[in-house]
Order: sequence, then C-alpha cells, then structure tokens
Amino acid sequence: MEPQLNQFIGCNAPFDDAKVVLFGAPYDSTTSFRPGARFGPAAMRAESFGIETYSMLQDRDLAEDVRVFDSGDLELPFGAPDRALDMIEARSLEIVDAGKIPFLLGGEHLVTLGSVRAVAKRHPGLHIVHFDAHADLREDYLGVKLSHACVMRRCHDILGDGRIFQFGIRSGTREERQFMLDGHVTTELFSDTTFADVVKKIGPEAPVYLTVDLDVIDPSEFPGTGTQEAGGLKFSQLLGDLCRICKDLNVVAMDNVELSPALDQTGRSTALACKLLREELLALR
Amino acid sequence: MEPQLNQFIGCNAPFDDAKVVLFGAPYDSTTSFRPGARFGPAAMRAESFGIETYSMLQDRDLAEDVRVFDSGDLELPFGAPDRALDMIEARSLEIVDAGKIPFLLGGEHLVTLGSVRAVAKRHPGLHIVHFDAHADLREDYLGVKLSHACVMRRCHDILGDGRIFQFGIRSGTREERQFMLDGHVTTELFSDTTFADVVKKIGPEAPVYLTVDLDVIDPSEFPGTGTQEAGGLKFSQLLGDLCRICKDLNVVAMDNVELSPALDQTGRSTALACKLLREELLALR
Amino acid sequence: MEPQLNQFIGCNAPFDDAKVVLFGAPYDSTTSFRPGARFGPAAMRAESFGIETYSMLQDRDLAEDVRVFDSGDLELPFGAPDRALDMIEARSLEIVDAGKIPFLLGGEHLVTLGSVRAVAKRHPGLHIVHFDAHADLREDYLGVKLSHACVMRRCHDILGDGRIFQFGIRSGTREERQFMLDGHVTTELFSDTTFADVVKKIGPEAPVYLTVDLDVIDPSEFPGTGTQEAGGLKFSQLLGDLCRICKDLNVVAMDNVELSPALDQTGRSTALACKLLREELLALR
Amino acid sequence: MEPQLNQFIGCNAPFDDAKVVLFGAPYDSTTSFRPGARFGPAAMRAESFGIETYSMLQDRDLAEDVRVFDSGDLELPFGAPDRALDMIEARSLEIVDAGKIPFLLGGEHLVTLGSVRAVAKRHPGLHIVHFDAHADLREDYLGVKLSHACVMRRCHDILGDGRIFQFGIRSGTREERQFMLDGHVTTELFSDTTFADVVKKIGPEAPVYLTVDLDVIDPSEFPGTGTQEAGGLKFSQLLGDLCRICKDLNVVAMDNVELSPALDQTGRSTALACKLLREELLALR
Amino acid sequence: MEPQLNQFIGCNAPFDDAKVVLFGAPYDSTTSFRPGARFGPAAMRAESFGIETYSMLQDRDLAEDVRVFDSGDLELPFGAPDRALDMIEARSLEIVDAGKIPFLLGGEHLVTLGSVRAVAKRHPGLHIVHFDAHADLREDYLGVKLSHACVMRRCHDILGDGRIFQFGIRSGTREERQFMLDGHVTTELFSDTTFADVVKKIGPEAPVYLTVDLDVIDPSEFPGTGTQEAGGLKFSQLLGDLCRICKDLNVVAMDNVELSPALDQTGRSTALACKLLREELLALR
Amino acid sequence: MEPQLNQFIGCNAPFDDAKVVLFGAPYDSTTSFRPGARFGPAAMRAESFGIETYSMLQDRDLAEDVRVFDSGDLELPFGAPDRALDMIEARSLEIVDAGKIPFLLGGEHLVTLGSVRAVAKRHPGLHIVHFDAHADLREDYLGVKLSHACVMRRCHDILGDGRIFQFGIRSGTREERQFMLDGHVTTELFSDTTFADVVKKIGPEAPVYLTVDLDVIDPSEFPGTGTQEAGGLKFSQLLGDLCRICKDLNVVAMDNVELSPALDQTGRSTALACKLLREELLALR
Repeated sequence: MEPQLNQFIGCNAPFDDAKVVLFGAPYDSTTSFRPGARFGPAAMRAESFGIETYSMLQDRDLAEDVRVFDSGDLELPFGAPDRALDMIEARSLEIVDAGKIPFLLGGEHLVTLGSVRAVAKRHPGLHIVHFDAHADLREDYLGVKLSHACVMRRCHDILGDGRIFQFGIRSGTREERQFMLDGHVTTELFSDTTFADVVKKIGPEAPVYLTVDLDVIDPSEFPGTGTQEAGGLKFSQLLGDLCRICKDLNVVAMDNVELSPALDQTGRSTALACKLLREELLALR
Repeated sequence: MEPQLNQFIGCNAPFDDAKVVLFGAPYDSTTSFRPGARFGPAAMRAESFGIETYSMLQDRDLAEDVRVFDSGDLELPFGAPDRALDMIEARSLEIVDAGKIPFLLGGEHLVTLGSVRAVAKRHPGLHIVHFDAHADLREDYLGVKLSHACVMRRCHDILGDGRIFQFGIRSGTREERQFMLDGHVTTELFSDTTFADVVKKIGPEAPVYLTVDLDVIDPSEFPGTGTQEAGGLKFSQLLGDLCRICKDLNVVAMDNVELSPALDQTGRSTALACKLLREELLALR
Repeated sequence: MEPQLNQFIGCNAPFDDAKVVLFGAPYDSTTSFRPGARFGPAAMRAESFGIETYSMLQDRDLAEDVRVFDSGDLELPFGAPDRALDMIEARSLEIVDAGKIPFLLGGEHLVTLGSVRAVAKRHPGLHIVHFDAHADLREDYLGVKLSHACVMRRCHDILGDGRIFQFGIRSGTREERQFMLDGHVTTELFSDTTFADVVKKIGPEAPVYLTVDLDVIDPSEFPGTGTQEAGGLKFSQLLGDLCRICKDLNVVAMDNVELSPALDQTGRSTALACKLLREELLALR
Repeated sequence: MEPQLNQFIGCNAPFDDAKVVLFGAPYDSTTSFRPGARFGPAAMRAESFGIETYSMLQDRDLAEDVRVFDSGDLELPFGAPDRALDMIEARSLEIVDAGKIPFLLGGEHLVTLGSVRAVAKRHPGLHIVHFDAHADLREDYLGVKLSHACVMRRCHDILGDGRIFQFGIRSGTREERQFMLDGHVTTELFSDTTFADVVKKIGPEAPVYLTVDLDVIDPSEFPGTGTQEAGGLKFSQLLGDLCRICKDLNVVAMDNVELSPALDQTGRSTALACKLLREELLALR
Repeated sequence: MEPQLNQFIGCNAPFDDAKVVLFGAPYDSTTSFRPGARFGPAAMRAESFGIETYSMLQDRDLAEDVRVFDSGDLELPFGAPDRALDMIEARSLEIVDAGKIPFLLGGEHLVTLGSVRAVAKRHPGLHIVHFDAHADLREDYLGVKLSHACVMRRCHDILGDGRIFQFGIRSGTREERQFMLDGHVTTELFSDTTFADVVKKIGPEAPVYLTVDLDVIDPSEFPGTGTQEAGGLKFSQLLGDLCRICKDLNVVAMDNVELSPALDQTGRSTALACKLLREELLALR
Repeated sequence: MEPQLNQFIGCNAPFDDAKVVLFGAPYDSTTSFRPGARFGPAAMRAESFGIETYSMLQDRDLAEDVRVFDSGDLELPFGAPDRALDMIEARSLEIVDAGKIPFLLGGEHLVTLGSVRAVAKRHPGLHIVHFDAHADLREDYLGVKLSHACVMRRCHDILGDGRIFQFGIRSGTREERQFMLDGHVTTELFSDTTFADVVKKIGPEAPVYLTVDLDVIDPSEFPGTGTQEAGGLKFSQLLGDLCRICKDLNVVAMDNVELSPALDQTGRSTALACKLLREELLALR
C-alpha cells in the first residue's frame, strides 16, 4: 500500500524527467485588503481532480503529452517577508539550475519577486510580461518596500527600464501612472490590444518571465481574489494571450498568483485557475 | 380554506388542459464531483415567485397565454439508478401518451436517459439537441454505465448515429473527442456558430428532444452547477437558440438539468434558470 | 487624539466647500423579494478603502480634484415609509438649497421618491434618467402605492409625461409595458442603444435627476442585489453612459440604489459600486 | 396526476378535521437590524422533509396521531404594517371561530399582534406566555408603534397588567426594565427557573397564547435569526418548557417567529425549528 | 526534490510499521437529504495542518508516540453501491490481514458496511459500538436496502442479536423503535448514561468495531453534516467515551463518518473532526 | 451638517473626559492558519448598533454610566511586524500617560505585545491574566519570534516568571507544556476552575493587563476566529470571569483579540464580541 501524493492532476513526472516544475508559495502576509491567497495552491491541487487532463482546445493531455513535476508547497514563515523571499528564490534557482522551467503558484503577488531574483541571475536580458489589474509599481506601501503593491517596482529595480510589459492594468495611483508615462515600463491600460506588437517586439529568443496576477480577469469570471477590479479581461482573451506567449516566446519561468479560494464559495475561480494552468502547461513549447 | 400548491409560478393548468407537463427528478447519485442538483426543481419552484409571469421579450404571459401543469417531483431512490430511471421513464411515458410535452427538471444529467427512453418509444426518428459544457459520451465512468458522464452515449445506444447534435461542449476525454470525430454525433466545440445550419438540417417535422445541461452557460452567469467550465455560452445566446428551437422545430420533449442551487448563494443561478424556463415555455409552438 | 470619521474614501470636504453631498438612506421595508439593501451605504463606506482615490480612466483623484462631503446615513424608521420619505426629502432639500448636488445612496429604490420630491420643488422642468432592470411603473403593489415597485410611477405623478427616460428595463408586467407604449415614459428595453439620442434630446441645460438601480448591471458582474435579472448591461457600458451624463447634462441630483451587500459574499458587488461612485463623482461637471 | 401540495410534513389533514391550523405570515418590514424572517415559513415547509414525522421523545407521529392542516402563507403587503396585521387577524379569527387552534409561523415578531388581537376577542382573560431574548416592550421605536420592538407592549395595551409572562429576556432598554419592575408584566431575566411556578399560577383552565421568538435559544444552537443574543436558553430546556405548556395549560393559540433561514447557511436553525414545531404539535392536548 | 504526500498530519509511518491504517471512502450516493460527505476525508487531511500533533489532554504526540499510516482515499464509483462496498471491504480486509487496525473515514454511513463485512470475517464474535443521531435500522429506504438509513440493520443481518450497542440516537421511525424494543439491538436514546455499563458488559477481550456517525454531536458544535439533529451529545462527552473505548476495549476496527465539510463554512466541524481523530489515534491501546 | 463618527456604540466621550480609550489594531500578518482578524475592530463598530447600550445584567448603560472614547483604528503596515508593534506601543503609551486605560481591539494576538511593552514601562510589577485556547508560548514559530504563536513568551521575556496566569488553554506543543510545568507561567488547562484563587492571589492592588483571545470561547458559541479549538469555555463563564476581574482587580490595560468576522457569516461571533466588550466596559471599576 503506497501513500497518496499531493500533486496537481497529471503532474507526477519524476523531477529528473520534468520539463516544468510546479511549486507553491502559500504566503499572503503583505496583502493590504483581504488576505487568503495563501490557500491558493492547495485549493488548486485538490480541485484539479474536477477537470480533465485532456484539453479539447489544444488536443493535448497533461498526463500523456508533457512532463510536469509538482513539488508541493514551501513552508514559509508568515510575517517575515525577507526570509520567505529567500526561500522562494532558492527553490526557483534549484529548478532553473536543473535546466527546467520553474512555475510558481502564489500566494500574493510579492512572491514573484523571489522567483524573478533567481531567474534574473541565470538569464541575463530577462523580460517580464505582466498581466494584472493593479500596476504594483509603488515605491513603498505605508513605508514597506517588500509589499505586493510594490512588486513590479522591485522587479524594475533589478531589470531596469524597457524590460517590463504590462497588460490589463486598471488601478493605481497618480505616481504609478507617472512612472509609466516616464517610460520605465510599458503599460497598456484596461486591455490587451497591443499584445501582438509586444510579442513581436520581444521576439522568440529573449528570455521571458511571465507573471499572471489572476485578478486581471474580470471579477464576473474570477471573483476569488482579494482585490477585485471591475472592467477586466475576459478569460478567453487571457487564455489566448497566455497560450501564444507560451508557444511563441522563450518563457524561462512563470507564475500564477492571487487566487484566494475562500472568497468564492462557488468554487469556479479555483476551477478556472486549474483550467488555465492546464492550458499553460500544455502550451509551453 | 384550501391548501397551497407547490408549483412553478403560473403553471397551474389542470393536467387535462395542459399542453406541457413539468415534473422534477431530484436525483444526483452518480454526480462525480459536487452533488446538489437534487435540490434544483424545489429551488426553482420556490424562487419562481421572484420573477414575473410576463415576458417583455415575447410579450406573452405564463398565466394567460399558455397552459402548463407542474406535477411536482418524483420521489426517487438514491443509490439505485436503475429504478430511478424506470420511474422517470414511466412518468414521461404517461405524459407523452396523454398527448402532452413532458418537461423534465433535473437533477443530474443522467435523468435525461429515463425521459429519452420513454419518448423514443413513441416518436420514431427522434433527434436530440444537446447543450452542455461536457460531452457526456463516455462508454463508462469508473466502470459505471449509468452515469451522468455517459448519458449521451446511452442515448446514442438507443438512437444510433446522426441523431445527436451537441453545442457548447468544452470538456471531455480524448476518447470522447474521437467518438465525435468518428461521426457518431455532431458536435460543435466551444460555441454555437453552426446552430442555424443544424436547425435547418433537422427541419420542422422531425421529432426533437431538447436537453439543456445548464452548465453550458458561462460560470460567470451561472455558477450554481456542480462542475463549472469557464468559456461557456452567454445567457442571451442560449436564450435565443432555445426560443428558436421551441418555435421552429417539432419539440416533443424537453429537459433542463444540473442546477445545483446551494453552490450559488447569491441566488442568481436559480433566478436565471427560472427565467429561462419561463421563456422556453412561452416559446413552445 | 481625534475620533475617526465614517465617510466614503476621499469624500471629506467640509459641507460648506462641497460641490456634492453624499447621504445614505438605509431603508428596504417595501422590498418584495430579498431585503438587505439597507446595508448598502455602510458597506460602501467600509469597502471604499479597498479602492484608490485616483482614477486611471479619468486621470482625476477624489481626494485632490473634487470636493465631496459625505454626511453619513439618515436614521430611518422601518415600517413607516411615509415618514422615511419625509426625512429623505428634507435632507435632499437642505442640500439643494445650499446650492449643492445631493447624491443619495440607497437602500431600496423607493428612497428615490423622497429625493425627487425635493429636487422637483426647486428645479422646474426636471427630467429623470433611469437605469434599471425593472420598470417600477406599477400603480400599486399588493395595494401599496409607496413601494419600490411603483417608484417611477410616483415620480411620473409628479413630473408628468415625457420627462422620464428608462434604459436597460427587462422585467415588468403587461400593464407596465402598456404604460410605456402609451407614451407616458420613454423606455428602451434590454439595452441602451438609444442613449446618445436621449442625451441629445434632453440637452445640456435641462435639469436632470439621474437614478441608477444597480440591478441594471448584469448579475454576472453585480450579483449583490435583491432581484437579479439575467441579460443586463455590462459595467463598462453603464460606466460610459453615466460619465457622459455627468459631463454633458445638467445633473442636479443623483442616486445609486439597491446594492444588497450580504447577498454577494465575494464582496465584488460592493467593490464595483464603490468604483462606479468614484467615477461618477469625478465625472460631474 | 395530482398537483403537489406545499405543506409542512405530516400536516395534511383537511381543514374541517383539523385540531390545529398552521399559517405563515412572511413579513419582516419593521425589522430594525437584519431582515429575512419573511422566508421562515417557506424554509420550514421545504426542510420539514429532512425530519421524521415520528418523535422518539413522545412516541407519537405527526402523520398518525394528530390532525393538523397547513393552510400556507398569507400574501402580505410589505411596507404596510396596518394592513398586514389586519390580514393576520382575519385569518386567525377564522380559525378560532372554527373551533381550532391557530398556529402562526413568522415572520418577524410584530405578526404576533395580529393573531393576539383575534384571539383576545374570543377568549376573555387571555394570558400570554412569551419566550424571547428581547423584551419587546418599547412604547415606540424611532417613533413607530407597530414595530417588532414594541409588540409585547401593544399586547399589553390589549390585555392589561398581570397577563404577560416572559422568559429568557436578556436585552432591552432601561425603560423596558422599568416597565417590568413596575409590575406590568412578569419577566424572568436570562433563564426559566420560575417556569414551573408560572405554569402553576396560570392554571389548567385559563386561555393561553404561547408566543416563541426563537431567538430565545442560544445562538450556538440557533444562529438563524436577525438579532442574536449570546447567553440564551438551551434547545432541550425550551423544548421541555413548551411541551409542558402544551400539555398542562389551555393553549388556545400559538406562534413561532423570527427564523431567518438565510442567515444560517448550515441549515440547522431551520432543522431545529422544524423539530420544535413537530414536538409542539405532538404535545398539544 | 521529493513529491509532497497527502496524509493526515503525523500519520506518515510506513505501512509495515503501522499499528493503525487510515483510509478514506469518499462516497455519499445514497444520502437522502444533503450530500457532501464525500469530501470529508480530503478536508480532514487538508485541515489537519491547523492542529498540533501533540495532545495536551493525553500528553501524547501523533508524530512521536504512535505509528499510523494514512493510505489515502479509495476511488469509488458513484451510483454503484455494491461495487463501492466491495472495494471498501477489500481494503479493510487487506489491513486486518496484515495485523493492523483499519480506520475508515467516510463518506456517508453506508461505507461502514463494507468494513464491517471484512472485519466480521476475521473476528468472530464481533461487537459494534455505534454513536449516531439516527438509528439507521430501517429494513429498506424507498425500497433500497444498501442505504445509509439501513446500515445498522445490514450489520445486524451479519452479527445477529445482542451485538450492537447504540448511543445518542434521537431520530427514527416507529418501526425502528420497535426493532429496538424487540431486543435486537441495545439502544440508549438521546444520551450515553449507560455507557459505562455497556463497556463493562462487553469486556476487555471481545473484538469491537467502533463506528461514529459524527452527527451524534450536537449541531451547535458540529453543524457540518447532512442531517442535523438538535439535542446531541457534547463533544467533550463523546471524546471521553471514545477514549475510554479505545483504551479499555479490544477495538479491532474503527470509522468516523458523515463529516460534510462544505455545509459548515466556518471550518470548525472539520477542525473538530481532526481533533477527535487525533485523540482516538492517541488513545488506542 | 456634521460628518458621522465611526465609533463603537455609546463610546463617544471626548478624549479628555474618558476613563477608557479604545483603539483598533487591524493586523494579522503573522497568522499561521486562516487570516482575517484585521477586520475585527471595524466589524465590531459596525455591528455594535445591533446591540443596546444598556446592560440588563449590570443595570448600567454605556452611553450614560461610563466615559469611553473610541479613537478608531491605527493604520498598520502589513508585513512589517516590528513597525506595527512600535505604532501600537506608542498609542498605548499615549493613553496610559494621560491617566486612562487603553483597551486594544485586535487583530491577531501578536498586537498584545505592543501594548504590553507600553504598559510595562509605566506599571512596574505588571501581571497578565490571559484567556486563550492556545498557549502562545513558543520560543519561535518557523524561526519567527514576533509571531502570534509566541506572544506570551515575548511577554514573559519582559515580565519574567510568576506574572502570567493562563486559563482555558487546550492546544500547544510538548515544549510549551514543559514551559508551564517548569513554572514560568501559571496555566490552567481546559477550564477556569482555579480562577477565584488566582484573583485572590493577585489581589486588588497589583496592576493587571487583561488579554482575551476570544478563541478561548467554545467554537459553538464563537466560530468567527482563525483557529477554532473544540472544548472551550462557555460565554457565560468567561463573562463572569471578566466582569469579576474588571471589578475586583486593578486592571490598567486590556485587549480583546482574534475576532475574524468573515469566518462566521451568521454574524453572531461579532455580536457576541460586541456584547462582551460592552459588559467589560461597564464592569471596569
């Protein structure tokens, strides 16, 4: 009799064989409004058994056509963001150094910083493609620099101007808007109309970190997140964009963050996040 | 002082005068993910008093312009699908034999099989028009043949090739996809673009069983169902299709299934199901 | 140490300096289906701290670019609609007489009548632009004339024919439909296609009372309301219309009603209502 | 095929044969805190099928050993308490005049007044035994005299001093406390220790109206009510008291009020109310 | 990098070393009221990380002082109770034959039958100690013999008279009551006063199957179950009884059933079930 | 027209006149299980209008018989516990130095440390009376020393042996149990039997900080907290203890922490917390 494993459906390749390695960062200590994203990765694993491994859209199957290893959740210290980020960075680095793609499941958006730190060390010239309802470009939030509200600003500290491309942004401060207008990052407000241009501009070779704050999706389709902003992208729109990035760009690392399952007791936000993850994993070239 | 009746609003014609007879099949024993569809019919009756009997869309009134009898719920044995299907078949047959249209309210999708068995006995050449997020074409599910996940396959066992037309399907296995590609059923994935062609192909005379798994609607509009699949039809799109079928085809029997009211505590899924039912009843020629 | 104020975010101008004065009417005694709108204004104040004061859409900031005073909630007697309406009328009149725009937050839709009574006294030739899922044109509801279901009929009693313009209406009785067809009010069913024409027809000078029953929005985007009607306007569509009215017409008074926060435990209905209110306040000329 | 009836389980005696007649008063317009009691009677009927008709406690069966007729809900006008009370009074009088016991299901506590008015007309010397968390003895509430918060005071207006006996009261104003201390009513605060004495004092002949505001039960056992007060009676304690009253006193009319089912989504408050109702019906001599 | 295991906290002994083997039977197809018990075992594993492995009550630690192996959930076919019971029986037999104690986590109460069948084969003279709110002694339920409502009757079919001891029963039919009175089983209604006598009567040597339907606990403490019955045992009372049985009797197999986690969104029912399981595991001699 | 204040009902004395000053610390960043306590103080203020200012138990009225100033919530930086504690300490010190009693509303239990630091500076010989389900005596939690799970250990760092008295503790680690057994703190497990002895031992003169983690109450009465532990104190028991402490000891500062309102959607946990706060404020000598 063998113990049961706790993995996302179909993601049970051995580490050594895997092309992609999932890991969860159940952390939400800097969330400023409604916490709960810490439960995102566990909910996705549990609910993944409500979806098929097969995608009618791509005619591919998670259990047959790709090799993914789900390594489970890190055990992160709440209330100590510095140490939590170090632990995320270490895990991500370990995966990158094994020649695999780290795929981080948040948790709040701050966790992205840990993984970006790791990936940027190994992939000079890293770009970030960022889907989000919020700009996350503040210099600090109530004096705190390691906050979810500042995560893209911290990434900019590492990567510098011209490397971050944002879509779907529809909330921020006047200062954040000015930071965009000053050209530090490339932001499309409210929509993704310029998406094809950006893909073309980045090109198929440049290393790309793809970060998806799921609240970029309209709250009618994805209410299960801490800070809902009406007027978001449609699921089908985002799905198309993400599949295209996974296929056409050189994605070296990814994350999906800010699912807060308890806020949506219908369960459909978690179901949507599971489906999106399946499609991303199937689309990665 | 008379006792109060438990009927859908405006559906209190005497049985003998009725054109349509509603009945509920509160059964969900084979549901593989989240049960609760058993409570669908009762919730619809209770909440129907939150909508008007009058439709601004059709300028028709349920209490004045049609004759519908709501005969209440069957009392079905949980855990005994064979006997439950027999009871559903018997009720449906009784209605068909009285020259009326049986309109079944589920319950899980398996209940459709009972009614299709009855209707197919009396209407040779029966076609099925099927709206659903899921193909429901498995040969068996964990070895069980009388499962919601197999219901269209069981209907195909009865009707044979070329009689089943599916819309909105966006989840299934590779084997189900192959069954479609082999031409046993006619399936449009993800949408309803070919709907007008199918209506034309079936024609105004052929007997039609219309089965609507309400999870065909996008979960943003209809979260109250057990297995939510992002990327569905819009309510207005489905409403248009159903009204057209009711008006232009020879619908001899119908069902609406898989409302699971407790999963959507805002109540809007039940409200939507009530409104859809009203419009279908008003549109039937 | 000063006590904290209970005001919508950024709406802390002193009364004398304010252009707009918010007040809440937490009343829902005549609600015929699911009550709870009484908690709308309090929920909006509390949740307003989850949104920014800055609007990326308008590049304006509630705390910097407009002067709004939130005067809190009236304490209204449940079960005594006459007296409640008197108190609302008095508050609205006090604001109008100070040369300011009263902005009422409901509560159920009946509260609109109190404010319309006040505004009509001071602004002869008042027009009403009305967004709603329901016609609210009944002569009475179960014999009661001061009911949310009759509020526009009561407004028509005051203003007469040709002054009320309705959008998004998709539920009502045959009698209400006839009232529209008889030309007493101008109603667009289901949508807002004729919106631009109506704006043009009213013109930039005529005084306008803008009343928004938030259930005009599709329940997929705004489930937090007592009587949800599928098939509504999109948030972005409504937002565009409201901003245009605020900018192009002579809006002398406004209200937003029928948020029932407890019905949507994801919190996004309240968040949407907060965002809409911010945009309306920023758009008022 | 017969239509289904909407009755509490086992309560389908014909009116003429019945000893007890149930009726619902789905009204909550004067509720000052959280409304929703209007849905109490409907929820009890629907959920009654989750309990047995047989009581192990009393070895009696609702379907076999008593004759109860459930006459359904009145259709009451929200926002018009005067007329609602008239309709309740009329129904209660009709039942009393047929020589039967009216058993009213609320709704908010104000509905009791309608039934007490009827019963007091036919039963001179009427006593009231009152279980409640709240004294309900205010002269008025925000100027309103027909309020749930004043219902016992209005009953005292009818019956005079020495006729009302209260148990479990644990919330009220200083004025209400003084009204008790002045001897107008007999009140036991917090508990029911003096219950046996009161039963003895009233005696087996005097006509008794028994009114039970279910919030007298501790919120740990009965959270589904609008204004929960910690420190209440235990269910078993209340059950014992009520059975004793039903058996030993001359109960001529009863009510159970203030179940607000949507506030307790576990469903156990409704289940408890159903069980309590079964036991009361079985205990009535 | 190793995959994470999906086990109850502290229950990660290898199978060969274990004294107790946990397994889940996520089945609820015959549930007659509100289904959902299928999610019980998964919820307990996930939430077990919210409790300590150490018990202050027993001064013992799950990770240090006992050896338990959690073998995960069986994958059972919904709608096919015969086959589901066969699979449960097979797993239980495998554990018994390895000289270990099978500890089954339900699921609905019917699953007990599978395990009792296995254990009765190997332990002649088996007794059952049964805690439950419901008698579960029906001969059939709507004609179905393999129903949760009949599970103890089916066990009686196997074990015969004098072997089943019930506590806390407070709901059933007149026929079930008669079955008790006829002496087929020994039942204490409502409470556990005779518990010590029963323990003495069974004695320290006789093999005992201990089955705990968690709805025996009062719904105020344990609302997360499908059919809540007011008037139950206190948690502390049950805890004491179960620890005593585990210590003083020869318990050869156990189960805990009928946790339905989604019905209690506060999470405390699952937390209580986790704590109870820890204490039982620590108490087993 | 004056702005509305955001204060607990009846707590609107001016600062200078007040004997007690309330302040909220909406912080929960170190919560290890389910966060949400940050919303506790705001929920208590909003819901306080559902209780009376008058206490039948003490025959005292919050608005008439005591002088309390509610100074609102601090704006604390999530993810920066050091700075958050500094801000809490500063506020508490300001109140103590004005000769008043600071009454802190959490937030998670860590916030207590800030206030204890302030109070210990001004009151040599400070004692702590601590009600809680959890020992909170860990040296660190996942390496973090400023964690809710360590708060009493940090207080012990300040006060030393013999100064902390714990009641109701029923969860902890073996190490925490040893810390108790070593005599560093005085702990009564599970109950409060020794309460009177402790009160006597401390005596009427020694300065006391009273800290109440509301999860000490049994989850049946108080489910709205992050980590529920079955087997807690009854509300009435705790109420009696707290009133006695407030009357008989020299309480120089207090707090009530760990209400997490969103976890209990019935609202009764918040209502209970409001009532308890009223009684404490009325009992303070």
